[in-house]
Amino acid sequence: MTPTPLHCPRCGRRAEDLGGCPACAKEGIGVNTPPPLADLTGLDLASYPGGPWGWPDAVPVPGPPVTLGEGNTPNIRLRTTGGDAQQDAGSGELWLKFEGANPTGSHKDRAMAVGLAAAVAAGADTVLAASSGNAGAAAAAYAARAGLRCVVFTNEAVPAGLRAQIDALGAERVLHRGTVAERNAAMAKAVEERGWYPLTCFAAVPPGSNPYADEGYKSVAYELARDFAGRRIDTVVVPTSRADLLAGIGRGFRELVAAGLVAAEPRLVAAEPAPRAPLTAALRYTDRADQERARVVDGPTVAFSVGGERPCWQGLDALWRTGGTAVAVTDEVTLAEHRRLAAEGLLLEPSSAVGVAVARDLVREPGSLVITIGTATGLKQLGDHGLSDGSGSDTP
Amino acid sequence: MTPTPLHCPRCGRRAEDLGGCPACAKEGIGVNTPPPLADLTGLDLASYPGGPWGWPDAVPVPGPPVTLGEGNTPNIRLRTTGGDAQQDAGSGELWLKFEGANPTGSHKDRAMAVGLAAAVAAGADTVLAASSGNAGAAAAAYAARAGLRCVVFTNEAVPAGLRAQIDALGAERVLHRGTVAERNAAMAKAVEERGWYPLTCFAAVPPGSNPYADEGYKSVAYELARDFAGRRIDTVVVPTSRADLLAGIGRGFRELVAAGLVAAEPRLVAAEPAPRAPLTAALRYTDRADQERARVVDGPTVAFSVGGERPCWQGLDALWRTGGTAVAVTDEVTLAEHRRLAAEGLLLEPSSAVGVAVARDLVREPGSLVITIGTATGLKQLGDHGLSDGSGSDTP
Repeated sequence: MTPTPLHCPRCGRRAEDLGGCPACAKEGIGVNTPPPLADLTGLDLASYPGGPWGWPDAVPVPGPPVTLGEGNTPNIRLRTTGGDAQQDAGSGELWLKFEGANPTGSHKDRAMAVGLAAAVAAGADTVLAASSGNAGAAAAAYAARAGLRCVVFTNEAVPAGLRAQIDALGAERVLHRGTVAERNAAMAKAVEERGWYPLTCFAAVPPGSNPYADEGYKSVAYELARDFAGRRIDTVVVPTSRADLLAGIGRGFRELVAAGLVAAEPRLVAAEPAPRAPLTAALRYTDRADQERARVVDGPTVAFSVGGERPCWQGLDALWRTGGTAVAVTDEVTLAEHRRLAAEGLLLEPSSAVGVAVARDLVREPGSLVITIGTATGLKQLGDHGLSDGSGSDTP
Repeated sequence: MTPTPLHCPRCGRRAEDLGGCPACAKEGIGVNTPPPLADLTGLDLASYPGGPWGWPDAVPVPGPPVTLGEGNTPNIRLRTTGGDAQQDAGSGELWLKFEGANPTGSHKDRAMAVGLAAAVAAGADTVLAASSGNAGAAAAAYAARAGLRCVVFTNEAVPAGLRAQIDALGAERVLHRGTVAERNAAMAKAVEERGWYPLTCFAAVPPGSNPYADEGYKSVAYELARDFAGRRIDTVVVPTSRADLLAGIGRGFRELVAAGLVAAEPRLVAAEPAPRAPLTAALRYTDRADQERARVVDGPTVAFSVGGERPCWQGLDALWRTGGTAVAVTDEVTLAEHRRLAAEGLLLEPSSAVGVAVARDLVREPGSLVITIGTATGLKQLGDHGLSDGSGSDTP
């Protein structure tokens, strides 16, 4: 079965494989190559059942869905003052969409559900992912569900709980001690010579993850539009690494607006950890050509699953299109927010706290409606006593 | 504000407090004292929004809801042969309702959401729970959400991940090294002298948890009825300890049938670990008077959060009313099922595997629809390397 063609949104060239746009990569710019936007015309938002498979035609993957009940995550109103969530005055509303409710505990389930269906459609018997944790766990779970073998390349920085989750789900975890370049070469070799199906990227200039899989993130936008129907969502804050989630949410809202299902796209804001905040650094340039080529030193952070060295282009594009921005927060602020969330009953991974910290500043305008994505549960890191003392880890 | 009166369903006496029926306890029988069944007449099942607060009048607690987005957990179809879930032939359908998707990772969130609202309505400043883990974590989270102090009595058998979760959510965890009787006495004293609000019981003959809180479990039945609308659910399998969840699901279905929203109650089946299976033991007697008084030795099991020494009466009642039964499985079977679920992409706590193992035997009848409750995620026990080698722990 011929998969839906992929094109570079920056230069328009057709992609040959799942590894981003090679032409743009030669310019030093990582760009993912998504399938065409789906046409949602005539669909009824109120009856959208949620999840990446809720509107099957919105996902360009043939064959049966692979599912573990992902999606339909709850929206939880956060306190914006010291008082009760329902009685805050003098500021807007702050909501957290809690992606930790997904089957493996993170938003990655939305992508891996679609990614595994794509792998099955491609006739693969083995899928491959490189991951600092959540993506590897999700890949392992959905590969198990689909009956495919799963190999996950990890490094020593992956927390024990996440490693244990990947192992328990039956994936083969390969601890790669070499450089990122060496790991990428090993992945490329496995894809070329063994026909393993890649769920994450291995290009020198990272473009983001498997573009079919990333279509699963559009369902976050659909669910928000359904759940906040009749209201204007001003801003959606997204903890961002390679902008898979950010761009996916942006694409979902574009589809909704094009079909007349929502009036306007919300402003998208990327939340990054200050020690590795490429989008924030990029937007300091006035010229988009400079923004595309921004690069930062990749330092250690407690928010190990977000941030990076370079902005992925589709992340910039999502911010440009919606008049959005990127904001970086220090680890000190992240950890304080992490504690504040726990004091409100919510255990999230530190990367999610980055988003909440950014969102708190944006919600001060009375009447505004700000939603931040709580990307993953904190349950996987309960055993990591380093968490609360601020010791972080670096992940390539 | 006067709380809704509670009565013993066995002897009809009005309850004076939240600790079960004292008259029945004198006969050696633990019976919880629920509020009256709610009248769901005229409600629309299709538009039920899910969760314990989805139909506010079904919960007999005044005042604002306490919520972290609990409920609306997904139904995941399990393989019943070696093949694809969608293509099984020659047997019925087996579905898992995955309660691990709740905010703290277990079904207890449904109860503690209501229990904390009840505590607020009672004017309490501190809530109290004794817990082998999941209930303590849920109590901690919802107390934090409601702004109340939370004290959790635990023992040394509580896994490290669960202890860490309770701590991270800001509860005061009291490690009680004494006997159960001594712990109960300490709890009773705190309730009487300090006015702490009890979320779990501390009677010598355990009746089950706080009867207002337990009303939150009715929402499991409402959600199943909504999600499987138009189909006959033959059996619901519930991993059972003190039958809070089992009885709550039973009460929910009774309300639905009484209001004409579903045609018939499904058969309820209690799943227990063989080393401590009081309902299974009870049903070996033919006389209900003997069943009520059954007692077993409470042995160690990997399924540490279910089973017990005595049947709680409301559990027996739920089985009697629906023509159900209780089934016990050995730890060997539980661990094999735990691995089988992981091989299908699902990490659950071992107690949930007890239910799945029982359900597999019930689904063999072609055309049958069997649902088992996956009570909690396995993420909290990832750090416990004892899990996979079968080492268990005893909890009073």
